[in-house]
Amino acid sequence: MNFISDNQSTVFPEIIDYLQYINKNSSDSYGEDFVTIKANKLLADLFESKISIRYVSSGTAANAISLSSICPPYGGILCSEYSHLDKDECGAPEFFSGGAKLIPINSEDGLISTSNLNKTLKNYGLHGIHEIKLSTLSLTQASELGTVYKKEQIKELTEIAQKNSLNIHMDGARFANACESLNISPSEITWKSGIDILSLGATKNGAIACEVIIIFNEKIIDDIDRRQKRAGHLWSKNRYMAAQIIKWIENNNWLKAAKHSNKMAKLVKRILSSIKEIHIPYSVDANIIFAEIPLNLQKYLLKNNVKFSKWNGPNNLTRFVTSWDTEAKEISELETVVKNYKKI
Amino acid sequence: MNFISDNQSTVFPEIIDYLQYINKNSSDSYGEDFVTIKANKLLADLFESKISIRYVSSGTAANAISLSSICPPYGGILCSEYSHLDKDECGAPEFFSGGAKLIPINSEDGLISTSNLNKTLKNYGLHGIHEIKLSTLSLTQASELGTVYKKEQIKELTEIAQKNSLNIHMDGARFANACESLNISPSEITWKSGIDILSLGATKNGAIACEVIIIFNEKIIDDIDRRQKRAGHLWSKNRYMAAQIIKWIENNNWLKAAKHSNKMAKLVKRILSSIKEIHIPYSVDANIIFAEIPLNLQKYLLKNNVKFSKWNGPNNLTRFVTSWDTEAKEISELETVVKNYKKI
Amino acid sequence: MNFISDNQSTVFPEIIDYLQYINKNSSDSYGEDFVTIKANKLLADLFESKISIRYVSSGTAANAISLSSICPPYGGILCSEYSHLDKDECGAPEFFSGGAKLIPINSEDGLISTSNLNKTLKNYGLHGIHEIKLSTLSLTQASELGTVYKKEQIKELTEIAQKNSLNIHMDGARFANACESLNISPSEITWKSGIDILSLGATKNGAIACEVIIIFNEKIIDDIDRRQKRAGHLWSKNRYMAAQIIKWIENNNWLKAAKHSNKMAKLVKRILSSIKEIHIPYSVDANIIFAEIPLNLQKYLLKNNVKFSKWNGPNNLTRFVTSWDTEAKEISELETVVKNYKKI
Amino acid sequence: MNFISDNQSTVFPEIIDYLQYINKNSSDSYGEDFVTIKANKLLADLFESKISIRYVSSGTAANAISLSSICPPYGGILCSEYSHLDKDECGAPEFFSGGAKLIPINSEDGLISTSNLNKTLKNYGLHGIHEIKLSTLSLTQASELGTVYKKEQIKELTEIAQKNSLNIHMDGARFANACESLNISPSEITWKSGIDILSLGATKNGAIACEVIIIFNEKIIDDIDRRQKRAGHLWSKNRYMAAQIIKWIENNNWLKAAKHSNKMAKLVKRILSSIKEIHIPYSVDANIIFAEIPLNLQKYLLKNNVKFSKWNGPNNLTRFVTSWDTEAKEISELETVVKNYKKI
Repeated sequence: MNFISDNQSTVFPEIIDYLQYINKNSSDSYGEDFVTIKANKLLADLFESKISIRYVSSGTAANAISLSSICPPYGGILCSEYSHLDKDECGAPEFFSGGAKLIPINSEDGLISTSNLNKTLKNYGLHGIHEIKLSTLSLTQASELGTVYKKEQIKELTEIAQKNSLNIHMDGARFANACESLNISPSEITWKSGIDILSLGATKNGAIACEVIIIFNEKIIDDIDRRQKRAGHLWSKNRYMAAQIIKWIENNNWLKAAKHSNKMAKLVKRILSSIKEIHIPYSVDANIIFAEIPLNLQKYLLKNNVKFSKWNGPNNLTRFVTSWDTEAKEISELETVVKNYKKI
Repeated sequence: MNFISDNQSTVFPEIIDYLQYINKNSSDSYGEDFVTIKANKLLADLFESKISIRYVSSGTAANAISLSSICPPYGGILCSEYSHLDKDECGAPEFFSGGAKLIPINSEDGLISTSNLNKTLKNYGLHGIHEIKLSTLSLTQASELGTVYKKEQIKELTEIAQKNSLNIHMDGARFANACESLNISPSEITWKSGIDILSLGATKNGAIACEVIIIFNEKIIDDIDRRQKRAGHLWSKNRYMAAQIIKWIENNNWLKAAKHSNKMAKLVKRILSSIKEIHIPYSVDANIIFAEIPLNLQKYLLKNNVKFSKWNGPNNLTRFVTSWDTEAKEISELETVVKNYKKI
Repeated sequence: MNFISDNQSTVFPEIIDYLQYINKNSSDSYGEDFVTIKANKLLADLFESKISIRYVSSGTAANAISLSSICPPYGGILCSEYSHLDKDECGAPEFFSGGAKLIPINSEDGLISTSNLNKTLKNYGLHGIHEIKLSTLSLTQASELGTVYKKEQIKELTEIAQKNSLNIHMDGARFANACESLNISPSEITWKSGIDILSLGATKNGAIACEVIIIFNEKIIDDIDRRQKRAGHLWSKNRYMAAQIIKWIENNNWLKAAKHSNKMAKLVKRILSSIKEIHIPYSVDANIIFAEIPLNLQKYLLKNNVKFSKWNGPNNLTRFVTSWDTEAKEISELETVVKNYKKI
Repeated sequence: MNFISDNQSTVFPEIIDYLQYINKNSSDSYGEDFVTIKANKLLADLFESKISIRYVSSGTAANAISLSSICPPYGGILCSEYSHLDKDECGAPEFFSGGAKLIPINSEDGLISTSNLNKTLKNYGLHGIHEIKLSTLSLTQASELGTVYKKEQIKELTEIAQKNSLNIHMDGARFANACESLNISPSEITWKSGIDILSLGATKNGAIACEVIIIFNEKIIDDIDRRQKRAGHLWSKNRYMAAQIIKWIENNNWLKAAKHSNKMAKLVKRILSSIKEIHIPYSVDANIIFAEIPLNLQKYLLKNNVKFSKWNGPNNLTRFVTSWDTEAKEISELETVVKNYKKI
């Protein structure tokens, strides 16, 4: 019963089969090859738009390269107080941008509200050039707390952002889970809702190491190719990364995988909720469950081979994550462990 | 007949088979897994030493992370005038280090000579803190021009470097080819010869995307883990990168592959040399052949499907690279094309 | 009646006289001259310690150079939520450090409490290298809100910091005002209380442009000379900056000036407090008075030539600052304006 | 007899008198004051153009801020191999730009020739995004070797630069000496000849610490105000820096001072040339004399109180610099020392 993170999951077998398949001939490097061209086509179809695409092998890279190409070194990046950007990337956005400042916005459930965005915006501007220049808004979809922005919420936020001349980034490390949760197509919650650039994550949802920078608004981007290259994030044998995307998209694998993990999450939530000492503080919209669990109960679970993460936060907060390869068996085992506990 | 670059080559089939093999269970992330532990063990054995290891997915990343952890922002990095560092990484070392300066040293055949190193060293120090602080020497083995340092040459260079309090990096993008060319074990031309940190390249020699930072001298390194993380170069599913190294090392695959590409290079050299208008300016020690080829002859070759790269340099310089998967057929086809030319 | 900022004040006439005096002969540059040596001696005496000294021409420079030499690019700098560092330096610490992250700590009255420091420290460490590395604590003395740390408070904070392996910086843009307010000697609230490095401000208190980096703990500092040089903050004619310090220290001018401005601040506070609609939210320990003033009353004051700053904050917050050259006349005029208001 | 550097010189007495004069009232800070406005007016008149102006206190700062605002982090800056930028700023351009690369161009006499510029340009472009992007040309006027570009030379160089989409910077640390040497007005060798942005130096020519960034081409500049601020180079009491410029320009003081130092240089050259063992390798156009002097003769000079600098270079290279306050007495003393030598 491994609920530590979806980044510990396995890879779609189709992907590895496909690596074998394309491993026949030498090929142009740096993304000039036919595999990459095919992956690009599939992505453009998926997003129903003319887009620019860059492949990188981590979400931190996708975020940091994206942000550095739309935010100057003297800029400010508005993000949720729980954002991976701010809390779990060891300063990658600051590094790539040359020292931009992350501005965490209060966001009780991991989602930025229009009122909190407005409140933060109000705190800037009085001191002119002595302040950083607010430049960028970054939304995480699905959020780090497992919640999901509705299309209307995104639109309202991006409208405020645009009025304030902010460029808009979406951290989509779990974008698939969000789409599935909302039952909505990718275009609706990205460019149709004002997003300029997206970090699309495949790794946590069945790929080896593949995150795609999707640029909807080419006008605001400076030389992202060189930023990618000088960060060491341009693969010579790019076809082996693009190949992952092909099998991720084909046959709707990405959506099926997200559907499975989202469903497993709901089951985990139901099981954990059945213990009255456990409190689930956030809505479980995607594949993450936060649970406040008394320490002795945490011990009991760990002893019974239930793996989860302790988390920063009050009331003995913990995090459970399901993935595309979470097995029904793991859920039923968890149910048994929990039932046994209730008998004690 | 593709001689453009070894980075266009395919991947050892064993590697992809092995990816399939390990793709069964979820696993600890960020290199805490058993696959990574096994790869680490194989590398330590290969280098006959206690080493620290970091996996990244590009040579530029391996170089830039290594250098930034041994050179301060106000430091200087001595390197060959032809170094990939200086010429082909779009400023990655400058970016990662926070602005260190690359100091190119004249090096006729791609190798730094002790006399040229000494000459360059002499140009520094007179202006105190107005100058950058010379901090690091970087050697490329095999060099960008396809030549290889002998063990004694490396020792002489690192002795000078140590006397000048320089940390010493080796760019081993084609390290396998150098070892094979010298018929020497990896330890002899690295830590036994004064190298502190090595970028060991597997990608060009049969891996998908896998370069390993090998730290021999832990004392000079600052927090390289955080540098790797904040650069977006820490894979969550690191086992799929480490797996490549396992099959790269096992069964001496790395050495066999290098042997093949080196041998193919000698053949290409012999064939090209047979045309009197072609001049081969550098010793062909590894798998790279530089050739000065008159433009009309270049056209002829291209028309006959011989792929190579035009290069910066005088006399219509071109570059041919062989790889682990260069086929005998390609060589015999090249031979035919050249023979036909001579008949004209 | 100018209460906008002490950085709008004039310069001690003694300083300019002294510039004239030293302007006779050419002299060694970059701080090797006799004027600088004399200033260094006076500073060492003032701080009763062997210290290292660097002169720069702005407080932002003093802070950013200091911090970058004690905090790595992947480090975190704990500071008050109101700190000039975080709010008014347009990202200078991030820029100089190569991307370190400022961690603002809640601090109701501008002072960091031990409990809030501990609370913030607790939020770090769980995510290992995915988090920045907490490296530095910065205290502002006197604080940006005009309050002053007592010696014991500083000691308690630096003890916690040392236990957590943090280096400790003090932003002393208004250090003179703090010393005078506490009636304490400089050494007591710096190195004797655990401070490693101090930005000592003279500009706001009677100099032209002179801030001094005072290093108490040489061991934790990397090559600060080169950091200063490459930031363009090494004056060739350093004697004209050091000269300012000589006349700032001699005859206790620095302390007399601070005494005057602190006293003027108390008067301003008393006068403003006499209007019942005005609320003074913070203790007026130094030369800054924050006042919540209804908008119509603000208008009245401005119309009557009382100059002050609107400030970010609730309840129509404003800031008044007195300086070494605030005149008795300005205070009595303010009193008259306020009296007239009360008559209305 | 101090010929070490013009940065060891004194300050125009008028400047310090004027500091005294303006030191009467508090004033707006950060350049919003009347002194700065007056200085701006004088500069606009001097350059016969609408210009944007920023005041900073060192040449390194002026250069680095200028360059960082016209060259991206992934950019390349073409400069002379002898440029102060590359050799004597401890990596300031790299630091401010976020890692741009300086590309030194061979320049025998300190001046870049069109042929050497073209030769260097040719070496770029073949490797696309793997190379930095050539972005900027920087010319030093007068050059670090004491030579001066003619107007036509500048025009030819900037035309090539513009054709290659380069922005053009001029390092004018000794701009006054160049204007005087050419007997030409400032506009002719700046914006009328294609210069986009100039670092105008006053410090070496009679100011305390004042270098002015003059922006002719506003279109190519990003937010230079914030770059200046976050570098700690925005003075609060800016009027004390701008005041220096007022007295530097008024009464043609800048030109008179340059005329004097240029004239002194010619005398030094004549005197040194009179010794047949001494070789003067470069034209003495401004106030710098390079001289190859046998070591025993160097010793003799030093023993006789002639101060100069040893320099990097062959044949025992030395550097002599004259300044606005070099005294006739120093020259006649030098003449005597040299005469006595010839008698030996």
